Amino acid sequence: MDITATYTDLYELTMAQVYHRNGLSDKKAVFDVFFRRSPFNGGYAVFAGLSTLLDILHDLRFDPSDLEYLLGLGFEDDFLDHLKKFRFKGDVRSVREGEIVFPTEVILQVEADMLEAQIVETLVLNILNFQTLIATKASRIRSVAPDKVLIDFGLRRAQGMGGYHASRAAYIGGFDSTSNVRAGRDFGMPVSGTMAHSFVQSRPDELTAFREYSSARPDDCVLLVDTYNTLRSGIPNAITVAKEMEGQGRRLKGIRLDSGDLAYLSREARRMLDDNGLGYVRIAASNQLDEYVIRSLKEQEAPIDVYGVGTNLVVGYPDGALDGVYKLSMFNDVPCMKLSENVKKVTLPFKKQIFRYSNDGWTGADAIVTDDESKIDVMYDPFDPYRSLDLSSYEYEPLMNKVLEGGEIIQTSGDLERIREYASSRLAQLPPEYKRFENPHIYKVGISPRIRSERDRFIKELRMVK
Amino acid sequence: MDITATYTDLYELTMAQVYHRNGLSDKKAVFDVFFRRSPFNGGYAVFAGLSTLLDILHDLRFDPSDLEYLLGLGFEDDFLDHLKKFRFKGDVRSVREGEIVFPTEVILQVEADMLEAQIVETLVLNILNFQTLIATKASRIRSVAPDKVLIDFGLRRAQGMGGYHASRAAYIGGFDSTSNVRAGRDFGMPVSGTMAHSFVQSRPDELTAFREYSSARPDDCVLLVDTYNTLRSGIPNAITVAKEMEGQGRRLKGIRLDSGDLAYLSREARRMLDDNGLGYVRIAASNQLDEYVIRSLKEQEAPIDVYGVGTNLVVGYPDGALDGVYKLSMFNDVPCMKLSENVKKVTLPFKKQIFRYSNDGWTGADAIVTDDESKIDVMYDPFDPYRSLDLSSYEYEPLMNKVLEGGEIIQTSGDLERIREYASSRLAQLPPEYKRFENPHIYKVGISPRIRSERDRFIKELRMVK
Repeated sequence: MDITATYTDLYELTMAQVYHRNGLSDKKAVFDVFFRRSPFNGGYAVFAGLSTLLDILHDLRFDPSDLEYLLGLGFEDDFLDHLKKFRFKGDVRSVREGEIVFPTEVILQVEADMLEAQIVETLVLNILNFQTLIATKASRIRSVAPDKVLIDFGLRRAQGMGGYHASRAAYIGGFDSTSNVRAGRDFGMPVSGTMAHSFVQSRPDELTAFREYSSARPDDCVLLVDTYNTLRSGIPNAITVAKEMEGQGRRLKGIRLDSGDLAYLSREARRMLDDNGLGYVRIAASNQLDEYVIRSLKEQEAPIDVYGVGTNLVVGYPDGALDGVYKLSMFNDVPCMKLSENVKKVTLPFKKQIFRYSNDGWTGADAIVTDDESKIDVMYDPFDPYRSLDLSSYEYEPLMNKVLEGGEIIQTSGDLERIREYASSRLAQLPPEYKRFENPHIYKVGISPRIRSERDRFIKELRMVK
Repeated sequence: MDITATYTDLYELTMAQVYHRNGLSDKKAVFDVFFRRSPFNGGYAVFAGLSTLLDILHDLRFDPSDLEYLLGLGFEDDFLDHLKKFRFKGDVRSVREGEIVFPTEVILQVEADMLEAQIVETLVLNILNFQTLIATKASRIRSVAPDKVLIDFGLRRAQGMGGYHASRAAYIGGFDSTSNVRAGRDFGMPVSGTMAHSFVQSRPDELTAFREYSSARPDDCVLLVDTYNTLRSGIPNAITVAKEMEGQGRRLKGIRLDSGDLAYLSREARRMLDDNGLGYVRIAASNQLDEYVIRSLKEQEAPIDVYGVGTNLVVGYPDGALDGVYKLSMFNDVPCMKLSENVKKVTLPFKKQIFRYSNDGWTGADAIVTDDESKIDVMYDPFDPYRSLDLSSYEYEPLMNKVLEGGEIIQTSGDLERIREYASSRLAQLPPEYKRFENPHIYKVGISPRIRSERDRFIKELRMVK
């Protein structure tokens, strides 16, 4: 499935037709992307998907089957003629891919003709919500296993073709490699894998299977030891093969446990291997892992060197989705907002910038400012009128840059390696209390005095008018 | 992203090379697909994804970039020459798409040369696990709203490109339409949608926005009433426009509530509409819905006619994945199995068939039999040696048919409409106790006397040998 411009919700096209019909198509609009709640009840998210999004936006078109289909749905000829020439010619300003981001703050802004900005809404959210969710999940797993090898094994349980970008995002969040060959091919990530139970089953016995596999992969041999009985058959056979390999001047790289009590089995395996002078053989483990199970294995001092993580990583269990939204903040050069009974759902007007304030190298607070404001010395809680923060003693840096201009990519995210390193360096600057799993500290995101006063003025006006 | 044969885990290719090297590539293998636990703690699953899978299997190839990439990974020339000619030439036997299926029973069998069967494992699971999960979720939502209109709104929060097949599966599970235009185009499903908050924001006021929208969509006008204030502004403005439409001989189709307390607001909205003689205007609701919220709204007698369900549907919340597996059951014409410490994880040998037994039109029990067995009169619990079921008074039907032969599709699932109707008719035959959400009755799946005795003999032999 190649993504075309019908990769959207019907109402985006319905709206686009209304804009077209009323001569509003080319009025300038600014839309903000932000989320309201950090995934996994955590304290942050790792922003991912930007490069994927920019590439798709750059090439987005309605193909002939799209136009034919829309004609069949009753869209008007004149509008379809317009769509025939559609391309996304707007600007995108964004924080860097791999940036650590927080609820409420804008992470990306689309500034384009209303018709274009409307049509791409669904696409923007679909790409960014998912990759950000998975990169965040991966970073949590990395945080409990900083010195272990982490491999993404999830494709078979991934949400269909979602698995493709899941592997990309997992790498950004700190995984070392993936089993997903196609993702490895397209994104230039390391790929890895071991052997299958079915191979062991298909050979006359386990020892034969291990010997055949080791001779086919002498330099990269990891034996799967749980097809029949891990301790009585798998590990003893692996030891036999490791000794035979030593006779040929080779070394068995590792064994993999894929079932049973991983803490107990890894300890027994380590002892059996060490007793046979195989201290160099590494132990890999897989089977329903996530950050909590790995943390528990670590607390039990399970001697596991490599973790293969599948389902819980690639589907972002238990959340399954990030709640990112795309909200109009300017139309025809006029700042605008959506009211709500709930102040937390009121959107913020203006074209924006984010300033990140830090102290002694530690990230401390983010301020949402208008794009023409310079350093501010005080910011306000977006929801609580009585809370403010003095920022005068902090260093600051702007986080958003223009990445797409007139539909052309003017700043890429760089290769995946660079994005991954950036995410890792930014997480290292975030104090640990924001990274803990249980009741993390809430990172301060505030609004500038200008945004605050304009928002409050708008709320009053709108409430009076209605 | 077009799916090529590298849409797989690396270990499938590593294994394939070992088979190739050891002259085992063309030995016949049979793999079973089954799952161990019904999703959502429910009592069944709706099998979906078959047609997608068959189309992909039929066209699966390694393209030149795949082969170049694998060469770079160190795969051997001779093996890559073999992959250059790769196509899937095996057979697939399967239950019908839309069938109601249960844990432990095989739902699809792949019979092919070992190399081919191994390479497609990841793909088979990736497609079937996800669509089955979502069709099942959709069927649960349908079960609490049998007479309501259900629309899939999920693409923006879907797991990246997973959203494409999520919409397909939701339709199979009983949804009426989707907002996902591309899925509607490709799968021939009805699409629907209303209006956007941003449209209302972009117009001088809400009433102007409603008037413009209604004149652009006079026959299909659903007004979104919560941009500013639902009861004080949105609904009164909608009533004004409905009256104006009546003056032109048109009828407002509906209003949509997208925030707030849907039970309270829908009741108030109904009353306000009815008081103005607008009993025909329907009420649509959306915002974080799932089967539990809709059931609760129904219990509160909320007068809602149309539900738009997004995130929780398309990501299969809270499960996120179905645990389907792909296990070797025959190799080189010899039945085989994988042992495990846990009897529930022992696989079943043989090429298989499923017989479904029913009584008075009600589905009652499924038996896993070998593919050459005819009607059996007793089946055994797969895990508990002391439990059996007398089947002599039941009607029965075989569930699996050959759908792919020698790589060619010989039986299609038919169009989506037909699959959806089949799912609905099969769910209607399933007694309600299997469909309830809380502690559903466990549907009986048993094994034939032959499978039982062979399995027990294998376990003894394998335990003795190892």
